[in-house]
Amino acid sequence: MREIKIGMLGFGTVGTGVIKILFQNQTSIEEKLGARIVIKKIADIDMERDRGINIPRETLTTDCMEVIDDPEIDIVVELIGGYEPARTYIIESISRGKNVVTANKALLATKGLEIFNLAYKKGVDIGFEGSVGGGIPIIRAVKEGLVANNILSIYGIINGTANYILSKMAHEGGKFKDVLRKAQEKGYAEADPTLDVEGIDSAHKLAILVSLCFGTKISLEDIYTEGISQISPLDIKFAKEFGYSIKLLAIAKMEGNSISARVHPTMLPQNHPLSAVDGVFNAIAIHGDAVGPTIFYGRGAGMMPTGSAVLSDIIDISRNIINKSQQRVPPLGYQWNRIKDMKIKPIEELEVRYYLRFSVIDRPGVLSKISGILGDNNISIASVIQKGRQIEGAVPVVMITHEAKERNIRRALELINNLPVVLEKTILIRIEDRNL
Amino acid sequence: MREIKIGMLGFGTVGTGVIKILFQNQTSIEEKLGARIVIKKIADIDMERDRGINIPRETLTTDCMEVIDDPEIDIVVELIGGYEPARTYIIESISRGKNVVTANKALLATKGLEIFNLAYKKGVDIGFEGSVGGGIPIIRAVKEGLVANNILSIYGIINGTANYILSKMAHEGGKFKDVLRKAQEKGYAEADPTLDVEGIDSAHKLAILVSLCFGTKISLEDIYTEGISQISPLDIKFAKEFGYSIKLLAIAKMEGNSISARVHPTMLPQNHPLSAVDGVFNAIAIHGDAVGPTIFYGRGAGMMPTGSAVLSDIIDISRNIINKSQQRVPPLGYQWNRIKDMKIKPIEELEVRYYLRFSVIDRPGVLSKISGILGDNNISIASVIQKGRQIEGAVPVVMITHEAKERNIRRALELINNLPVVLEKTILIRIEDRNL
Repeated sequence: MREIKIGMLGFGTVGTGVIKILFQNQTSIEEKLGARIVIKKIADIDMERDRGINIPRETLTTDCMEVIDDPEIDIVVELIGGYEPARTYIIESISRGKNVVTANKALLATKGLEIFNLAYKKGVDIGFEGSVGGGIPIIRAVKEGLVANNILSIYGIINGTANYILSKMAHEGGKFKDVLRKAQEKGYAEADPTLDVEGIDSAHKLAILVSLCFGTKISLEDIYTEGISQISPLDIKFAKEFGYSIKLLAIAKMEGNSISARVHPTMLPQNHPLSAVDGVFNAIAIHGDAVGPTIFYGRGAGMMPTGSAVLSDIIDISRNIINKSQQRVPPLGYQWNRIKDMKIKPIEELEVRYYLRFSVIDRPGVLSKISGILGDNNISIASVIQKGRQIEGAVPVVMITHEAKERNIRRALELINNLPVVLEKTILIRIEDRNL
Repeated sequence: MREIKIGMLGFGTVGTGVIKILFQNQTSIEEKLGARIVIKKIADIDMERDRGINIPRETLTTDCMEVIDDPEIDIVVELIGGYEPARTYIIESISRGKNVVTANKALLATKGLEIFNLAYKKGVDIGFEGSVGGGIPIIRAVKEGLVANNILSIYGIINGTANYILSKMAHEGGKFKDVLRKAQEKGYAEADPTLDVEGIDSAHKLAILVSLCFGTKISLEDIYTEGISQISPLDIKFAKEFGYSIKLLAIAKMEGNSISARVHPTMLPQNHPLSAVDGVFNAIAIHGDAVGPTIFYGRGAGMMPTGSAVLSDIIDISRNIINKSQQRVPPLGYQWNRIKDMKIKPIEELEVRYYLRFSVIDRPGVLSKISGILGDNNISIASVIQKGRQIEGAVPVVMITHEAKERNIRRALELINNLPVVLEKTILIRIEDRNL
């Protein structure tokens, strides 16, 4: 049976998953591929750790270049993560005519074009199914399954840590900090959770999805990014009263000739399917002009799910190697010379409904002052909840606006936050309840 | 720009959708494929109907063989449906070395192996993404996205008509017959709804999914099939009381070395994601050993969604034609000589929990008689609801059993249905609330 030889850089959680699946499902993978996938070399600084799988000592090396320079290796699987040295190793691999599989979303979101351009020139494949949505085959769905569609919008819950924390806060109560600490204890959040809870990881993944869905370049700086650390139990409670859940959503839409792309806590109708996505699960809703709304749901991270995605790329590229059909599908789904520059709409031009929670002194005239400023800025109010009880000295006044311009909201909030009767910075949560 | 020429057999709803999408999204499809898809010929008996799209008169023909015999046509798209003459036209097309795209689930479920075998021998591709789940790219997800997994189970809501009727009954009330009539008026159900409401269409689609997921042959007769026409508002009400929804599910599982495959109304926990799939939407939950649970959701039928799926196959095969890589992925995902014969577990060996609704005369001793027969057949009862009120002369007694063998349930019900105090045939609904 023909053999496809792979080399792996980084033998951590996902790498271990890849090898485990390859061993466990060897028979069925061979029945499908008609060839055998052989692990030729694995590079990792840790050659001693017991990973619960039997790898011959001579397969392991501490030198990544030994993998990259091995002429027998067809596919280099980069699972080191981060920017450097991962970028250099990928560039070196492609330069030597090797196909590459990676799950490195941070790198692809920032250096993707450089890497894809080099792969295009060298005629090799680059697979990155594991970079978004863990085991959910979303990259392939966009590039191939929904290929006939012009994509209209993306709504994604694409960070398991943030979704786990928000789900816990919604179902069991608790403040962000406390729930985060528990998530860290259970291994669902990193020691430094910044990338996950501040929305940066979601923005990386959204940048990749935007490029695939719209065939366009996008810089990370063009994606407005806001995390969940400001979300309080009080906001979750008020959201419920209005019939909403709060999710950290990555959203991108085609709007005329420009694109909007943003990551922020979002109020979604409780009966929307994405509201039911709990815990570490991910879900991506893609609306295509022909297919209509679709949703792809599954585990967004972890050894075996991400391993499943990485292996799907290895098998896909193996099929291309066997059939001499590399670059059969371009990395971003679009022919390389057809990747466009599109206008990215600044967040100030966003028009949605807003949830605003003011912390004010309970005094006559406060409501009229706030609503006056909102009115002056063309913001009209759809509903108000004002409850008499004191919370840490302040009274919460909650408003849901009609559709308003983010620019106007920001201008109004600057004025409102400076009022002497306003005790804390106003909480703003964007609402998505139309065109979902 | 290179041209890929296609011919179409049948210019009905889905065919019109294919052409509409092709016209509407021509630019982006060319940007992705790097080639132009050209409609060379369309055969349909109706050459006059206004389909809302502009097709040159000379493209149309009433003679399917004119399409099949055209040497310039690379891909024949069969959208006639049904067994004959669709089968013959597909066979004739493949025999002439043409690639085929079809959405014909009835044909593939019964004659799939003959067709795939011929395609294998002739070295051509056959695409059938449109045959299951309308626009949901589920075929591709199983064959490619989840390729590294051994699939453990499939749970699918794969008939929009049945799901529409059950959703309406659950949310708005009404008897099956009345809701069906309204669905027919709205065009959501056919004049003869048998295939949809009796589960036959779901069984066709399940047969295709089983072959793909498990790499096995399966005959339609091996799939136990039961429709929704017996479901009454009373059962939906009781289901809610127990925390369940009722859905027409297509279920298949790997159980040791054999497979179970069945279509029937099923009680699902209300908080399970599939319970939230309403109206004409479809959703397919696939559990892979590596990826864990995944769900794919979208419109399961209709001009544009199914057109989207058919076009994804046309584009996929076009890429193979351009790269001379036909049969890069085998039709069922497995190498043709690795398709297995697997044991199909008869429904009598099923072990699940059961919902049983007895219609009895309200008389002392009836409950003890029924539970006595259940006990004699090794069926133990988890909960009982007996309410005093008379419904059309009979009193409903509802029981939920612990896990029991279907064989025992059937034996017990035969005895119970023959009791003089039992006025109507007992209603049985299978429950799935474990291992979901």
